[in-house]
Amino acid sequence: MAVGIYQDGVNSVHSSAVPLVRELSKDHDLVLKTFRLLIADLCQQFNGGHPGGAIGMAAIGVSLWRYVMRYAPHTPGFFNRDRFVLSNGHTCLFQYSFLHLTGYKAMTFDQLKSYHSDRVDALCPGHPEIEHEGIEVTTGPLGQGIANAVGMAMATKNLAATYNRPGFDVEGVALEAISLAGHFRLNNLTVIYDNNQITCDGSVDLTNTEDVNTKMRACGWDVIEVADGCFDIEGIVLALEQARLSKQKPTFINIKTVIGLDSSVAGTAVAHGAAFGAQSIRDMKAAYGFNPEEHFVIGESVRQFFEGIPERGEQWVQEWNQLVNDYAAQHPALAAEFMARVRGELPANWEEHIPTTFPDKPTATRAASGLVFNPIAEHVNSFMVGTADLSPSVNMIWPGKVDFQHPELRTTCGINGTYSGRYIHYGVREHAMAAISNGLAAYSPNTIIPVTSTFFMFYLYAAPAVRMGALQHLQIIHVATHDSIGMGEDGPTHQPIELANLYRAMPNLLYIRPGDSEETAGAWIAAIGAKQTPSIISTSRQTLPQIPQTRRDGVALGAYVLSEAESATVTLIGVGAELSFAVQVAEQLKVQKGITARVVSFPCQRLFEKQSLEYKRKTLRRHQGIPAVVIEPYAPNGWERYADAGICITRFGHSLPGKAAYKHFGFDIDTLTTKVAGYLDRIQEDEFLRGEFVEL
Amino acid sequence: MAVGIYQDGVNSVHSSAVPLVRELSKDHDLVLKTFRLLIADLCQQFNGGHPGGAIGMAAIGVSLWRYVMRYAPHTPGFFNRDRFVLSNGHTCLFQYSFLHLTGYKAMTFDQLKSYHSDRVDALCPGHPEIEHEGIEVTTGPLGQGIANAVGMAMATKNLAATYNRPGFDVEGVALEAISLAGHFRLNNLTVIYDNNQITCDGSVDLTNTEDVNTKMRACGWDVIEVADGCFDIEGIVLALEQARLSKQKPTFINIKTVIGLDSSVAGTAVAHGAAFGAQSIRDMKAAYGFNPEEHFVIGESVRQFFEGIPERGEQWVQEWNQLVNDYAAQHPALAAEFMARVRGELPANWEEHIPTTFPDKPTATRAASGLVFNPIAEHVNSFMVGTADLSPSVNMIWPGKVDFQHPELRTTCGINGTYSGRYIHYGVREHAMAAISNGLAAYSPNTIIPVTSTFFMFYLYAAPAVRMGALQHLQIIHVATHDSIGMGEDGPTHQPIELANLYRAMPNLLYIRPGDSEETAGAWIAAIGAKQTPSIISTSRQTLPQIPQTRRDGVALGAYVLSEAESATVTLIGVGAELSFAVQVAEQLKVQKGITARVVSFPCQRLFEKQSLEYKRKTLRRHQGIPAVVIEPYAPNGWERYADAGICITRFGHSLPGKAAYKHFGFDIDTLTTKVAGYLDRIQEDEFLRGEFVEL
Repeated sequence: MAVGIYQDGVNSVHSSAVPLVRELSKDHDLVLKTFRLLIADLCQQFNGGHPGGAIGMAAIGVSLWRYVMRYAPHTPGFFNRDRFVLSNGHTCLFQYSFLHLTGYKAMTFDQLKSYHSDRVDALCPGHPEIEHEGIEVTTGPLGQGIANAVGMAMATKNLAATYNRPGFDVEGVALEAISLAGHFRLNNLTVIYDNNQITCDGSVDLTNTEDVNTKMRACGWDVIEVADGCFDIEGIVLALEQARLSKQKPTFINIKTVIGLDSSVAGTAVAHGAAFGAQSIRDMKAAYGFNPEEHFVIGESVRQFFEGIPERGEQWVQEWNQLVNDYAAQHPALAAEFMARVRGELPANWEEHIPTTFPDKPTATRAASGLVFNPIAEHVNSFMVGTADLSPSVNMIWPGKVDFQHPELRTTCGINGTYSGRYIHYGVREHAMAAISNGLAAYSPNTIIPVTSTFFMFYLYAAPAVRMGALQHLQIIHVATHDSIGMGEDGPTHQPIELANLYRAMPNLLYIRPGDSEETAGAWIAAIGAKQTPSIISTSRQTLPQIPQTRRDGVALGAYVLSEAESATVTLIGVGAELSFAVQVAEQLKVQKGITARVVSFPCQRLFEKQSLEYKRKTLRRHQGIPAVVIEPYAPNGWERYADAGICITRFGHSLPGKAAYKHFGFDIDTLTTKVAGYLDRIQEDEFLRGEFVEL
Repeated sequence: MAVGIYQDGVNSVHSSAVPLVRELSKDHDLVLKTFRLLIADLCQQFNGGHPGGAIGMAAIGVSLWRYVMRYAPHTPGFFNRDRFVLSNGHTCLFQYSFLHLTGYKAMTFDQLKSYHSDRVDALCPGHPEIEHEGIEVTTGPLGQGIANAVGMAMATKNLAATYNRPGFDVEGVALEAISLAGHFRLNNLTVIYDNNQITCDGSVDLTNTEDVNTKMRACGWDVIEVADGCFDIEGIVLALEQARLSKQKPTFINIKTVIGLDSSVAGTAVAHGAAFGAQSIRDMKAAYGFNPEEHFVIGESVRQFFEGIPERGEQWVQEWNQLVNDYAAQHPALAAEFMARVRGELPANWEEHIPTTFPDKPTATRAASGLVFNPIAEHVNSFMVGTADLSPSVNMIWPGKVDFQHPELRTTCGINGTYSGRYIHYGVREHAMAAISNGLAAYSPNTIIPVTSTFFMFYLYAAPAVRMGALQHLQIIHVATHDSIGMGEDGPTHQPIELANLYRAMPNLLYIRPGDSEETAGAWIAAIGAKQTPSIISTSRQTLPQIPQTRRDGVALGAYVLSEAESATVTLIGVGAELSFAVQVAEQLKVQKGITARVVSFPCQRLFEKQSLEYKRKTLRRHQGIPAVVIEPYAPNGWERYADAGICITRFGHSLPGKAAYKHFGFDIDTLTTKVAGYLDRIQEDEFLRGEFVEL
C-alpha cells in the first residue's frame, strides 16, 4: 500500500475485478456439504474442538474467500489485501479450512488435520495466531478481534490520507468492529454477525433480549440482514458488496445461521465445543449422500471450485506492484517514506529529537515524558498517539498535532481533524484503546507504532488487550501516568498497589518506572527500540527532583548502580517516582546512623533479567553479603529475587494528598531510615532472617 | 427489608408518602446557588478536586435527597432504603454535600471541609467509599458503579421474590445500570444520565456521536428526557416518579446539564477536575448576590429547606420495623431465615453439606468443586451463583436449580426462571458479572454471597471489578476453571501464565489453587469462611489423581507439609493442578537418584503469610539449609519468597493438548526430576547461587 493506494472517504468496488455477483456458481450444495463434513471429521479425529460455528458459517466463508475478498494466497503479505479478522476465534477451523482450500501453501492437508493434535509445529492452534500465514491477528478472548479490526480499518484510513495522491485508488476491507468505528465513520469496515442465537449456556434469550440491529444503527452503522445464512451465498455476497459501497458508515451484516447445521445437535449449545460423535457423523454423511466410512473427503469438483484463486491473487499483487512503482516515480519522497514504513523502519535520525539535557528543576515524569516524546511524535509519522480522555493529564500533545477524525466532523462539530491526523481521542474506552492499538500494529509490522495513554490504574481495564499485544509481539507503547500512591487524592480506587505485579510477570512486556527526566528519556529509548515488545512507561503525577547520577543508558540495563560505596553495609533499591527517597535515605543513614549505603536504581525488572549473571551480581552485590532493601509503595511480590527486605505496601491505598499518602504509609525519609537501620540490627540477631524476605 | 417487604414485579410509589410533586417548594434558587458556591469553595480551599459535575447536577441532587429518595440519615443502614450509587465517583462532593445538608451525623461541616485535606480520618475521600455512612458502594473507576447498581436491583428482586408474602409490599429504588438490566426487566432500577456533553478532552462529540436514547431503548429501557437539568427540579422529580412507576423496564433519565454552571469555565472541560480560582469564585458570588469574601456559606433558609429529613426517615424506619414484626408473627420460619441473612449469618449446619470423602479416582478439581459446593448452593439461600456463559464447563449446577430471570420469560422464551432463582446466566460478560456481584454483596453484608464462574484467564477481563470487591471487603467467591497450561488446546490466549501474579499480589484477596478433591473442599471452606474477603478458587480442566496425604484443613494454613523426611536434601513445593507432579518427582528422585525430597503443598500464598514465623520455618525448613524448588507452570515472580529455585514459565503458552503442553514446557516427571537433581549439583559448585532465585 502506498500513497494513492488507499482512498480517502469513499470506497469503490475493485476496479480490476469483474462484478462478482454475476459469476456466482449455480450449485454450491456439494461445496457446502463437503466443508461441513470436513469440519465434523476434523473435530471427531481427536474428539474435541469447536465444530458448530464453523459449520454454521460455511456459506459465509464461501462468499468471502471464493467471491468477495481480495487477497493472494501465494503472497500472504500482499499489502493491499482485504484483512479478515475472526473475532470468534474458537471457530478457527472455519478459517483454517478455507486457507487450505484456497491454496495457502503452508496450510497443507496434513497441517489442517493436525488441529488438536500434539504436533508442536502445527499451524492450527485452538485459536488463530498471527504468526501463521493468512492470519491477520491473534484472537480468542471474545471482543478483542472486533476492536483489532477497527484498528486495522483506522490504519488503512490513516495511511491512505497520508500517502494517497490523485490517480491512485484502491482500498481494502476489514471485517468486524466496535462503537468507535461508527464515530470515525469507518466505511471500510464490515462486521459479519454470525447470528446463530446460541451461547454455551443455551439460547441467547437466556441473557440477551436486545434489539441488536437498532443498537448498531444508534451507534452509526448501516445494518443489512441476511435471512438464510446457511445457504444463501448470493444474498451474503450482495450484502458484502453493498457494505463495500458504503460511503459514510461501517456496515453490520446480521446473518442468521444454524450452529452445527445438519448434525444431530444442530441449533443447540451442544454443537459449540465438542465433537459430534462417530455415529452422528456417519448419519450426517449418509444423509448427504457421502460414504459414511470415508473421512476428510474433498472431491475433485470441490477442489476445482476453489481453483484459480492463487493466480487471481498474484494478478492483484502485480497490479499493486505496478501501482507502487508508478507512484514512486511521481512522488519519490513520499514513496520512500512509505516504503520505509512498510519495512518497519524509523527515520535514521529519530533519536536526535530527544533532548540531551533537561531543566534542572523538579519535574513530573509525566511532563518529562512529553518533553522526550512529543518532538518525536511531531516529526515521525509512524506514531499514532491516543488517550482515553486524559489529554490534560498525559502530556502527549505536540505543537500542531492533528486529530484522527472523519474530515466532515470539522464542519458539523467544529472538530479539527482528518484521517491523516495521528492523535486519537478514544473517549473513556481504555480497553478498546489498547485492542484497537493491537489492530493498528498488526496491520503491518512497525508501520504504525501505536501509543496509548491514561492513568496507570486504568491499564487494569486495558489488561486483556495489553496481554494480546505482548503475545503477538506487537510494538505498542503504553504511557501510564499517576503511578503509585503518590498520585494522591483520587484515593485507593485510583492508586495502584498490585498492578505492576501483573505487568512485571507478563511475558514479552517491558514495565518501566523512570525516576526522573533523564531516566524518562531512557525509558522512551528502550520502548522505541523494542520492535517486537510492547512497553508500559509508568510515570508520576507529582514533580520529582532531578537526580544527578541517573543515566538514560542505565535504563536499558534494567538496573544500575546509582551511587557505589565499596564498604557499604546495605544496598538500597530505588524505583521510579520513589527513587529519590532511596537517595535521601542513603544520605540520612550516613549522617544520622553512620551507616554506608549504596543505591541502585531499578526501573525495569525484565530488562535487568536479560543481563549477564556477572552484571547482576556486580549491580546488587548480594553475593558479597550486602543485604538489599527495596523501597517501593507497591506489593512486594517479585522483589524477593533482588532484595532481602522491602518497604512496600500490602494493603490498598488511602485518599490523601500525595505527600500525606506517602507519610501515612511510612514513605517519609525519617521512617524509611529508621526501618532500614532497624532491619540491619535485626539480621544481626536472627541468623536465619537473611534467607527470608522481610517486609519492613 | 424482609419477606413481603419487597414487591415482585411491580413497584408502587411509597404508600406512606404524600405524592411528592405536590409539595415542591416554589423557590429553589437560593438552595441551588448556595450548593454551587459551596462546591466551588470546597475545591478552591486546597486548590483541587472535581467541581464541575457536582455543580451541574445540583438540581438533580435536590430532587433526589429532598423529594424522591426514601432513606433515613439517622439510621443509615435502614434496610428498606432506596440505594443511591454515584457511578461518576469523582463528583463525590455532590454526594458528600447532600449527606451533610440532609443530616447524616458523621458528615459534619468540618468533615465536609476536609475534602482534599491531609486529614487521615476524613470521610470525604476523592471517590466515595463504602465504609462511610450514606455510601452504598465504592465507585470511581468508570463503569463499575452502574453495574453495582444492577446488582443491588437484582438483590432486591431476589430477596423480594424469596421472602415476600401477600400483604407486605414496599420497595427500594436503585440508580444506574447496564444492559443486562434490560433483559432482567429491573423496573426497580433508574439511571440518571448527567448529560453535560463534556469529557476531559473536550466535547463528547470528539469521540461519541451515538444516539444514546435509541441505544438504551434497544437494550430494553424506558427513556425519559429532561431538557433543563440545571433548574427544572419539578421536571426531574416527575421523571424520577415516573421511573418508579415503571412496570416492566429499568428507566434511563437523560438530563441535560451544564458542567460548572455559572463559573467562568461553565460548559467546558476545564470545569471537570480543577478548582476555579479565587477570583472566578468571587465573581460567581457577586453575580449570585453573595458576599464575595465569605466562604462555605449555608444560610438559615437553606438549612431550613433540608430540615425534617432525618425525622421523615425515622418514621419510615419505624414503619419498616413494624412491618417486619408483623411479618415475623405471620411467617416465623421465613422471618427467622431472613433476619439471619440480614445479620450475615449462614445456617449453623452449612458445612455438613460438604462430602467428608471423595471417590478415589482421578477427578478434575472443577468437578470436585461442584461436588463440594453444589449441595451447599442447593440448601443455603444466601448463595447466588452465576456464570459468564460457561455452565457446561464450571460444574455449578445443582439439582433443581432455578434461574434468576423475569418470570414472564417462562412464557415468552420458554426459560425456566423467576426472581427467586439463584442461578444467574450473565452471558459472555465477565466484567459485568464481577461488578454486578459487587452490587449483590454491597447490598447488605453477607446477606447474599455472590459466586461467579468462568475460565481463569477470563478473570483478567473481570479484574477491575474483582479488585473493587477486595477493596470493599466484600465476600464474593470466584470459581475459575481451566487454570494453567494444563487446559490445553485452546492455546496461549486462554492459558494463564502471569494472571496469578496479579491476584497473589492483590490486597485482601485469596487466590487458592487446590491440588485434588480434598484440597478443593478446603478451598471452599476457606472461601466461605472469609466473610470480608473475596476468593478465587482456581481449578483444573483436566482430571487429577487423588493424593492420599492432602488435608482440607491444610488449605487454611496456606501451605503444609505433604510428606516429611527428616534427612531431606530438597523441598519440592507443589501447587494446585501440578501438585501431583511434585509428589511423583520426589518418588523418582529417591528411586533414580537416591535423593530424599520432602513435599510441601502450597495452595494459597496469602493464607500462608498469615501464619507464624515458626510455622513458616517448620513448613519450609529453608533455615535448616534445605533448598526449596517450586514447580508451577506460571510466571515465578513472588515464589522467590518461599523457594530457592523454580520450574516455572516465563513465556506465553502453546496450543497443544494438556499433556503435550506440559511436556512441551518440560513439565513431565523425567524432565522435572533431571532439573531438580541438576540444581542440587549446581549449588554445590557455585557458592553464591543459594542466595539467588534460579529458574530451572
